[in-house]
Amino acid sequence: MRILPPPLLTLFLLLTAWQMSLSCAADGKARATQPNFVVIFCDDLGYGDLSCFGHPTIRTPNLDRLAQEGQKWTTFYAAANVCTPSRAALMTGRYPIRSGMTSDANTVLFPDSTGGLPASEITIAEALKDLGYATACVGKWHLGHLPQYLPTRNGFDSYFGIPYSNDMDRVDKKTSQFELAEQEQFQAYNCPLMRDEKIIERPTDQRTLTKRYTEEAVKKIHELKDRPFFLYLAHNLPHIPLFRSSGFKGHSPAGIYGDVLEEIDWSVGQVAAALKDIGIEKNTLLIFTSDNGPWLTFKTHGGSAGLLRDGKGSSWEGGHRVPAVMSWPGTLSPGIVYQMGSTLDLLPTFVSLAGGTPPQDRILDGYDLTPTLKGTGPSPREEMFFYKGAQLYAVRKGDYKIHFATYTAYVKQEPVVHDPPLLYEINHDPAERFDITPEHPELLEELKVLAQKHRDSVIPVPDQLASRTRRNN
Amino acid sequence: MRILPPPLLTLFLLLTAWQMSLSCAADGKARATQPNFVVIFCDDLGYGDLSCFGHPTIRTPNLDRLAQEGQKWTTFYAAANVCTPSRAALMTGRYPIRSGMTSDANTVLFPDSTGGLPASEITIAEALKDLGYATACVGKWHLGHLPQYLPTRNGFDSYFGIPYSNDMDRVDKKTSQFELAEQEQFQAYNCPLMRDEKIIERPTDQRTLTKRYTEEAVKKIHELKDRPFFLYLAHNLPHIPLFRSSGFKGHSPAGIYGDVLEEIDWSVGQVAAALKDIGIEKNTLLIFTSDNGPWLTFKTHGGSAGLLRDGKGSSWEGGHRVPAVMSWPGTLSPGIVYQMGSTLDLLPTFVSLAGGTPPQDRILDGYDLTPTLKGTGPSPREEMFFYKGAQLYAVRKGDYKIHFATYTAYVKQEPVVHDPPLLYEINHDPAERFDITPEHPELLEELKVLAQKHRDSVIPVPDQLASRTRRNN
Repeated sequence: MRILPPPLLTLFLLLTAWQMSLSCAADGKARATQPNFVVIFCDDLGYGDLSCFGHPTIRTPNLDRLAQEGQKWTTFYAAANVCTPSRAALMTGRYPIRSGMTSDANTVLFPDSTGGLPASEITIAEALKDLGYATACVGKWHLGHLPQYLPTRNGFDSYFGIPYSNDMDRVDKKTSQFELAEQEQFQAYNCPLMRDEKIIERPTDQRTLTKRYTEEAVKKIHELKDRPFFLYLAHNLPHIPLFRSSGFKGHSPAGIYGDVLEEIDWSVGQVAAALKDIGIEKNTLLIFTSDNGPWLTFKTHGGSAGLLRDGKGSSWEGGHRVPAVMSWPGTLSPGIVYQMGSTLDLLPTFVSLAGGTPPQDRILDGYDLTPTLKGTGPSPREEMFFYKGAQLYAVRKGDYKIHFATYTAYVKQEPVVHDPPLLYEINHDPAERFDITPEHPELLEELKVLAQKHRDSVIPVPDQLASRTRRNN
Repeated sequence: MRILPPPLLTLFLLLTAWQMSLSCAADGKARATQPNFVVIFCDDLGYGDLSCFGHPTIRTPNLDRLAQEGQKWTTFYAAANVCTPSRAALMTGRYPIRSGMTSDANTVLFPDSTGGLPASEITIAEALKDLGYATACVGKWHLGHLPQYLPTRNGFDSYFGIPYSNDMDRVDKKTSQFELAEQEQFQAYNCPLMRDEKIIERPTDQRTLTKRYTEEAVKKIHELKDRPFFLYLAHNLPHIPLFRSSGFKGHSPAGIYGDVLEEIDWSVGQVAAALKDIGIEKNTLLIFTSDNGPWLTFKTHGGSAGLLRDGKGSSWEGGHRVPAVMSWPGTLSPGIVYQMGSTLDLLPTFVSLAGGTPPQDRILDGYDLTPTLKGTGPSPREEMFFYKGAQLYAVRKGDYKIHFATYTAYVKQEPVVHDPPLLYEINHDPAERFDITPEHPELLEELKVLAQKHRDSVIPVPDQLASRTRRNN
């Protein structure tokens, strides 16, 4: 929404409140059936990092249980392969190229960036607020840290978290980030911890970050339980530098990265337990996923993409495909879903389940996944577009993925343009090992047309990531 | 056991039967508590090929359920990275270098090979037979196909299967093996199907092989249910060429390899259901695993090692580490076991659970995993030796693995000797990406000593794989 001058804003808020009370009065039944939504979003968690996605030594019993009782989505895509654009996509249901939240100039927002998610974008929080939801944001935001871009200006009633990545505002640039993490030098990063719009701690003691985010999330669930609510819990971890609370030091056979993951799994258990204790778990759709693939250049401080190729920063599957676990006891059709889904789909799905209609005045890239959740039909998602910055690198349609260009992030290889493009049959070859371009000229043509149609649908907007004051992150 | 001339053999069998009846009479209680053992052994199934080990599009609901209710072993090793030596190790509890069942001359036994498992070796079947067990072998043998080497001469009461690999006796050498499989040209391989010691079908109609092995296994369970029994069901698949029965054609979103795996999963479900229907599942330890990693050079007709490095033929983890699922309702402590186990451990574990003592007159390389199965203690296995043919390439001790030499099977790279050796911290870095040799000179020394001690323990024996009549497989 556009920022209004204060008097108008007050009037607008009063009107909204009146409208909301009206809609509640008019449709008590809709309210009674509106489910709660909890999204737990990890940072740089790789496809292969959970036990239920095949990791041998990282133990995630809480997620395994939710996956077992609910749905494990094995082909779930983040809509970008780095933080800021991926989060913009989740929040808006639109590829970040549409909001200006991806760029060739900078990969993400930095502490000296001046841009952020434009007010004209409609976030999940705003859409659900219009439908009578209480909303809370806990954790990493990374869609702009100047006041006008904060969660509280984007539909969230409250905010508690670091507004960007936990490796930013780095003070000690001499010591390696591996050492800083292993020696628990959280002071080496001058990250601000905010409550609503105020900084309450700086540097943030990251050792207790996951723990405090969890406590805040559980507190919010208790506070908001009598209304339908949307809780967005976006962990800063397992993004480097890796920190965990004392109870999780040496917890995992997989080392420090495993410790961090096992604390996040504990956190998921706490959230699920809170929902159950209050007795609202059957009215809550909980979704756990990640913003992009693992940061492979950080070696054992980064995660694993499992059988997928490459990781964070790349349009190979390892950059985009993320673990997704969904829970909604009594409503979800339990099982493994191998059809496509994306973080882009959360907005239309949530709005639909809340009894509303997604925004009609703009292009939405998300689909309503309700049929797949309830087991009444296949996933409506049949295609996915893969960007590096503002450039379209790859397109998947059905079983096939075409790469016009590739970038191997693991070795920081220069991007390579492919002419003819590369073609992979993804369900048969999820590791993207066997180019079948020569065998399928007809598919190449079809996918090229689809790519062009998508490009044509993009209306140029200002690049929100371009402007920085110092470039000294 | 040594082969005896017929009259002596008859006497021996009579004596054995008398001994057995005596031991039964003497210890009815031991018999009553002797569990059944079912080993389902796959061929070239990779670490990443089951849903519960992270494959996105191969669906294995039966194995997933057994893993969920029983134990999923995430660090379970085949004792060799190709068929014949791996099977020799499983059957004897000894590294194949000790029995002459591994060789630098040939990787495995071929149809023109004249060797096989020496009669002096004691197989699981022989050891359990001595303890009063009925025994049945269904499927691939590959420990010698001349009469004196067959399962029926190695402790099994019955045999039904192809005595070696399903790609042997190839007749059509012009058509690619991909095409032969996709066109279901089973006649292109003149493989014999045997019952006991007779060939009953040639070429074997491989399209129904998994189905017929399953039916035979279920029949055997019904036949043997009133005695403690050991059933060894060794599928020829998913080794290439890939064949599956008509009900599984186009069954999997993962293509033909997925079809084959999904039929094997169905087969596991049939075996588990038979145990349950008869009411003996609580007295049966069922173990599902694989002989080595995936045959990566066969592209989409080969499997996936998941996050592990390389595959079949290699001493990297992808060659040796295999999925393992164990089920024994009411006795197994359910959960994920990340500690080490190996196919070498089956013999001592089974013999111990059956109330016996493993052979004392020879070096055994297996450990009794009972404590880990029952949840009463950690795995006794703390080390693993990795061979390529008759050469020791790598050693794992605890968290660390040292490579004296490596061979990347995926690209058929020439073996590389490493001096200093490579060192990996396996639980932190299961993909073997980050050599930590420079940081740990003390570990290098310790592992070198362990390797030498192991080498010194090997008594030279005749190479059973060296001798072939034609070399025309």
